[in-house]
Amino acid sequence: MSDRVIITDVGPRDGLQNQQKILSPSERLRLINALSKAGVPVIEVGSFVSPKAVPAMVGTDEIVGSLTADSKSLYTALIPNMKGYELAVKAGVKSVTMVLYASESMAQKNVNMSMLQAEDVTVDILRCAKQDELEVITIVSVAFGCPFDGPIDPSVVAQVTGKFLALDADRVVLADTIGAANPLQVRELITKLTKTHGTEKLGCHFHDTRAMGVANVFAAVESGIRHFDASIAGLGGCPFAPGATGNVATEDVVMMLEQMGFDTGIDLNDLMAASDLAVQLTGTAPGGRSKVWLKRYLAEQAERETTAQYAIN
Amino acid sequence: MSDRVIITDVGPRDGLQNQQKILSPSERLRLINALSKAGVPVIEVGSFVSPKAVPAMVGTDEIVGSLTADSKSLYTALIPNMKGYELAVKAGVKSVTMVLYASESMAQKNVNMSMLQAEDVTVDILRCAKQDELEVITIVSVAFGCPFDGPIDPSVVAQVTGKFLALDADRVVLADTIGAANPLQVRELITKLTKTHGTEKLGCHFHDTRAMGVANVFAAVESGIRHFDASIAGLGGCPFAPGATGNVATEDVVMMLEQMGFDTGIDLNDLMAASDLAVQLTGTAPGGRSKVWLKRYLAEQAERETTAQYAIN
Repeated sequence: MSDRVIITDVGPRDGLQNQQKILSPSERLRLINALSKAGVPVIEVGSFVSPKAVPAMVGTDEIVGSLTADSKSLYTALIPNMKGYELAVKAGVKSVTMVLYASESMAQKNVNMSMLQAEDVTVDILRCAKQDELEVITIVSVAFGCPFDGPIDPSVVAQVTGKFLALDADRVVLADTIGAANPLQVRELITKLTKTHGTEKLGCHFHDTRAMGVANVFAAVESGIRHFDASIAGLGGCPFAPGATGNVATEDVVMMLEQMGFDTGIDLNDLMAASDLAVQLTGTAPGGRSKVWLKRYLAEQAERETTAQYAIN
Repeated sequence: MSDRVIITDVGPRDGLQNQQKILSPSERLRLINALSKAGVPVIEVGSFVSPKAVPAMVGTDEIVGSLTADSKSLYTALIPNMKGYELAVKAGVKSVTMVLYASESMAQKNVNMSMLQAEDVTVDILRCAKQDELEVITIVSVAFGCPFDGPIDPSVVAQVTGKFLALDADRVVLADTIGAANPLQVRELITKLTKTHGTEKLGCHFHDTRAMGVANVFAAVESGIRHFDASIAGLGGCPFAPGATGNVATEDVVMMLEQMGFDTGIDLNDLMAASDLAVQLTGTAPGGRSKVWLKRYLAEQAERETTAQYAIN
């Protein structure tokens, strides 16, 4: 099994959308460019939603227009409906992300639709995106637990996953939207899904609301998953538990994966700079828990390299 | 395999010893009693060391003398040498904890002895403690990684573990003293040890320095370990990375274990009170990361119970 793991940094979208402070498009662009410089392979740069509904995402078109064309990062944007899709295409996105639901209550409360209605919207966009040769990422939200309906039946998740893989989605991401999953549950669901679908087109998205984010990443990578969402500096939160910890921090996930011998292709020094920038811009991002140690380690490593260089010269 | 997991809260010793603020014996006693009220089965209450060397542990004899005799918790104290053992016995301890080393450099820097010399000291105390019918816990420090010698050869840990189990130690705790372990490494070491020694007398002790504490607990419990050290409110730190996160928080470990179906026998409401007290007394304890969510959940549960009660009446 491959030792390459692909990280999608969802900080500039999922993260910033759940922070109190609203950043300007140029501030968000700085954060995206910092992540790109660190070699983060996929970055969720924003969403094409109503500016009234989500003021934190105003100007995503402007941001997409300013992104460096020769970046090695793939930029994806969240699309809620066909109007958003049209705006995203006009802005020049190459990858679109859509949200599906594993619980009726969450679909109703979030988008005032049934699960199936939300799927229909996504199917329409997916077909257009495939014709336009864009990458399609679908997120199955509340795939492990719902704040209204409780634990989710794995066969519900299996059904929607199978449906969208059959429709040729490039990736189906199992999202623990509210941070309710535990590592045993993660292993159980993924084992069920990979029997039918393999691992290549599945991803996972964890929150640290109940302190199990990193443990869930471990359980998932052990079960064969090689694609993870994470959020720089732990940007984010949980609308159903105000003040709780947010998305699992990119630096913590990269730290663990690299230490276990996986290759993320991410430069840790540049990732620390991106994390510092996220903290500086928002004023509230906690920063990954491994950050103090990681910065110390990187500084020591740099010192050793400098010393070695002097020794050679 | 048993679904019962025994937690030792090391906050009042390992935790407080690594906090800046020095608490009075009566403050430390309040914290110990709060943990005992929550049903924490084992509590490391302090150490019998030189007051000059470790001022944070002054008055441990006084604390042991004041502990409630009818408590269901087992109280253990750290013993560095025979003099400390004599003081501990005089104070009335029923369980003693001693530190062993998995690296020469750490043994030298910490106690100015070789690994073998430190083992000899522990063997002498162990023999006395067994005669005095006390419980004996031995901690293998830096069992996964050493700040001076790097990663530790599992066979070194296997040797010292085997030696002290043969000497009838009641438990050998594999301690990731500096938070260097990753979950794959945890599984590898434990799998090696349990082949020879089973799981019953082994424990694990993790720090969250690199954000992998909870993930390491998961890897260990999956490998059969049923005894974990943790520290209330994440009290503690790492002397080799100032400012880094400390021991894995008791509330986070209990949260995950209970959610995965294990039984810790700990009351979460009372554990939250102990965590609040730790934060209040030290001013710097971070509190478990699951705490915001957990408090909200417990409040909602209490409200539901109150409502149900009214409905019945």
